[in-house]
Amino acid sequence: MSLTHFTPSGDAHMVDVGDKVATRRRAVAEGWIRMEPETLALIEQGGHGKGDVLGIARVAGIMGAKRTSELVPLCHPLSLTRIDIALELRHGECAVQCSATVETNGRTGVEMEALCAVQVSLLTIYDMCKAVDRGMCMTDIRLVEKSGGRSGHWRRDPDASNSNP
Amino acid sequence: MSLTHFTPSGDAHMVDVGDKVATRRRAVAEGWIRMEPETLALIEQGGHGKGDVLGIARVAGIMGAKRTSELVPLCHPLSLTRIDIALELRHGECAVQCSATVETNGRTGVEMEALCAVQVSLLTIYDMCKAVDRGMCMTDIRLVEKSGGRSGHWRRDPDASNSNP
Amino acid sequence: MSLTHFTPSGDAHMVDVGDKVATRRRAVAEGWIRMEPETLALIEQGGHGKGDVLGIARVAGIMGAKRTSELVPLCHPLSLTRIDIALELRHGECAVQCSATVETNGRTGVEMEALCAVQVSLLTIYDMCKAVDRGMCMTDIRLVEKSGGRSGHWRRDPDASNSNP
Amino acid sequence: MSLTHFTPSGDAHMVDVGDKVATRRRAVAEGWIRMEPETLALIEQGGHGKGDVLGIARVAGIMGAKRTSELVPLCHPLSLTRIDIALELRHGECAVQCSATVETNGRTGVEMEALCAVQVSLLTIYDMCKAVDRGMCMTDIRLVEKSGGRSGHWRRDPDASNSNP
Amino acid sequence: MSLTHFTPSGDAHMVDVGDKVATRRRAVAEGWIRMEPETLALIEQGGHGKGDVLGIARVAGIMGAKRTSELVPLCHPLSLTRIDIALELRHGECAVQCSATVETNGRTGVEMEALCAVQVSLLTIYDMCKAVDRGMCMTDIRLVEKSGGRSGHWRRDPDASNSNP
Amino acid sequence: MSLTHFTPSGDAHMVDVGDKVATRRRAVAEGWIRMEPETLALIEQGGHGKGDVLGIARVAGIMGAKRTSELVPLCHPLSLTRIDIALELRHGECAVQCSATVETNGRTGVEMEALCAVQVSLLTIYDMCKAVDRGMCMTDIRLVEKSGGRSGHWRRDPDASNSNP
Repeated sequence: MSLTHFTPSGDAHMVDVGDKVATRRRAVAEGWIRMEPETLALIEQGGHGKGDVLGIARVAGIMGAKRTSELVPLCHPLSLTRIDIALELRHGECAVQCSATVETNGRTGVEMEALCAVQVSLLTIYDMCKAVDRGMCMTDIRLVEKSGGRSGHWRRDPDASNSNP
Repeated sequence: MSLTHFTPSGDAHMVDVGDKVATRRRAVAEGWIRMEPETLALIEQGGHGKGDVLGIARVAGIMGAKRTSELVPLCHPLSLTRIDIALELRHGECAVQCSATVETNGRTGVEMEALCAVQVSLLTIYDMCKAVDRGMCMTDIRLVEKSGGRSGHWRRDPDASNSNP
Repeated sequence: MSLTHFTPSGDAHMVDVGDKVATRRRAVAEGWIRMEPETLALIEQGGHGKGDVLGIARVAGIMGAKRTSELVPLCHPLSLTRIDIALELRHGECAVQCSATVETNGRTGVEMEALCAVQVSLLTIYDMCKAVDRGMCMTDIRLVEKSGGRSGHWRRDPDASNSNP
Repeated sequence: MSLTHFTPSGDAHMVDVGDKVATRRRAVAEGWIRMEPETLALIEQGGHGKGDVLGIARVAGIMGAKRTSELVPLCHPLSLTRIDIALELRHGECAVQCSATVETNGRTGVEMEALCAVQVSLLTIYDMCKAVDRGMCMTDIRLVEKSGGRSGHWRRDPDASNSNP
Repeated sequence: MSLTHFTPSGDAHMVDVGDKVATRRRAVAEGWIRMEPETLALIEQGGHGKGDVLGIARVAGIMGAKRTSELVPLCHPLSLTRIDIALELRHGECAVQCSATVETNGRTGVEMEALCAVQVSLLTIYDMCKAVDRGMCMTDIRLVEKSGGRSGHWRRDPDASNSNP
Repeated sequence: MSLTHFTPSGDAHMVDVGDKVATRRRAVAEGWIRMEPETLALIEQGGHGKGDVLGIARVAGIMGAKRTSELVPLCHPLSLTRIDIALELRHGECAVQCSATVETNGRTGVEMEALCAVQVSLLTIYDMCKAVDRGMCMTDIRLVEKSGGRSGHWRRDPDASNSNP
């Protein structure tokens, strides 16, 4: 077992995907930002027309997904065909949950784009709320599902140890 | 209590910091990526001269910190004066821990830059190892310490609930 | 009638174009920047070998078209196959007219790229002339024609109310 | 009278501002996008919690302002201290009006940043509504006011010929 | 003989490649950075686990290749399928040699991407060593080979005048 | 003697410049692109109003200088106050010579920005002429002079071995 992002001599490279077939590929990632109950309440108020934290985080995540190959050194540039970001208030866990679904017709998967979208969305929530809650914590950012390409369909085992925040 | 990133009418804006004093500001953030023991072993081997996953993740994090204000919509552009990223293998937790220290002489803090550096570093580790371990999980990304500016020194309470992965 | 950039629950997303066919698509946009006669004369002199305002504005517009999907949040990233920008001095209207033609072989149209090219070209003219004429006005930036894709050929009605500056 | 963005031999350059004093500078720009009444109604409905076109356009404009020096070739990179964008529905004119206020403590003015913010906001509105109204027209994008720096305070003459759409 | 990047009237444009066939294309470029023997020795020491100058230069080159169309005004944006960068210490010439291989399945060649990768790699070496050797010189940056597309295979004549540093 | 871009343990970092004084700093870099006489003649013709290769290369170099800290991983982001690029036809050497002068009021030097400007200018010339002359060679890209900061004034020794192409 070895890491494909390195040549046999150990040098990093952007893996050759020229022989891969361009197929429909899809990835879903998720993550959470945990916060104080008062902070969650402030975000919820914003949903009612003033100070729409989640709306801005969603836009930031969509734009972040498009920049993935600029941020992740060995990531292939891709023409994404779809980006959807869902943000849900989780009162029980005192958290906002973010899920990102990304698709392409391409030669490589879009896991990185989905994870990047989640990270930038959560980071944007942190930015807008940090003045009232510096201790917020972004957590359990992970791939949920992927399909398309040679490796076929993969879905996170819901019974795995890291399965909820 | 309200969110400063919104005007009284609820519209997002980039907060006016023109009256703030340009002072030395510093932020430290950290985060973890948990993985299978075999994956951690592969990264460790790379540290011995071939396939240097952590070296590439460190560079990506440094470069990511410099792009923070492009990714986070309401974040002020800043001229950073220092970026340091430490990556440690944590065999006990089966994880890599990332810490980022960022400094500026500016009118706003650099918490977002430090958090962004951690996120991009972890994301880059995920990218390089995903072919062997799709289930890796990025977690406990949070601010550890900040100093400078009107709000003075802040340090995360180590006894707080989210204090280790 | 509703806006396709939003889900039924009103959340913004990057529309799924994965099922669209990649066809040859073309868009033409135009716009004007009105100015003082003396400013137009300065630009005209530059065309004779010194201070080539229009040449720089053209390059800026071409480069701007390539960055459209970074600027417009819900815009799909596209591999453009052609960008042409024409800049004409309009002495009668005391203005420079800009026309941009953009093409791709892709799953979505290139209207946004053509409009963005016009905007950045005009903005660049403003920048270079602002020291002598702060009151310049960019105006009538609009789509002229588009072809390709499911919606077929569209051309602006020349008799419409906004048809000249 | 000549253009400062060119050397005596007619070559473009980024003007030397090293001897200018870093002062508080401010610019206000505005612009309009005219559309069909049905389109304006759709945007207005979005303001009530679903499909918030203006909220996304505002974020895009703020982010666009930060990228001005990447888009406009001879523009100086600046650390902005404030960006505010106001978007108003103008039923009488069947248009959305955008105003952007930008500030810095720097050696050059922020007119370009304010104009760029307006353009990107309007472009984003176009993008989100284009499927229902291809004929929208962005117009009367211009500087309203600037202060700070050697040239002092400037305000557009409201009686000037181009003063409303 | 004329330059294809200009229209018959002499205006720059991004050449129309819409009628070209998307084929597998490949380009190899190389370049050298010459330095003092002591500087080369410092880089060599870094290869043994501390201060890995070449590892960072390689990552920078890969990331630089992906940004080529942002830097070179008339260059088409492309989805690269492979980037490999080799860096070799040349003790005889007191230099580091960089070779970059880039591939795509596209409508235009990737010569510019390969050359850009070499330049950014060399520039990064310069940056990391400049504190000890300001006189380093980047030289003989050139295309070595290209294949794919209408013009077929091309290879630099090794007997040509500029064939070694 | 060691490389300042690495910590004692050999990890790359962005060097702390927070304690350095912000002073006026200036760097001049130069480089050459050698070509066939016919290619040089084509560029020269363009100087007479059609196909202005050098004008476009100059703009690209100015814009490239502003992006240096995005391309070079450990480079500090800086607010440049001046960029001048001179391009001269050298018939004797069958080459175009590029010189870039960059200035800032900052805590670090602008050598990298000046070298990056030269590289991007030369790369842009290559791009525009490559269809007629694939064998062009970019060479002798190096720092000529720097001033400001603790290390004071430095000027390349004109008798040094690499002093002309």
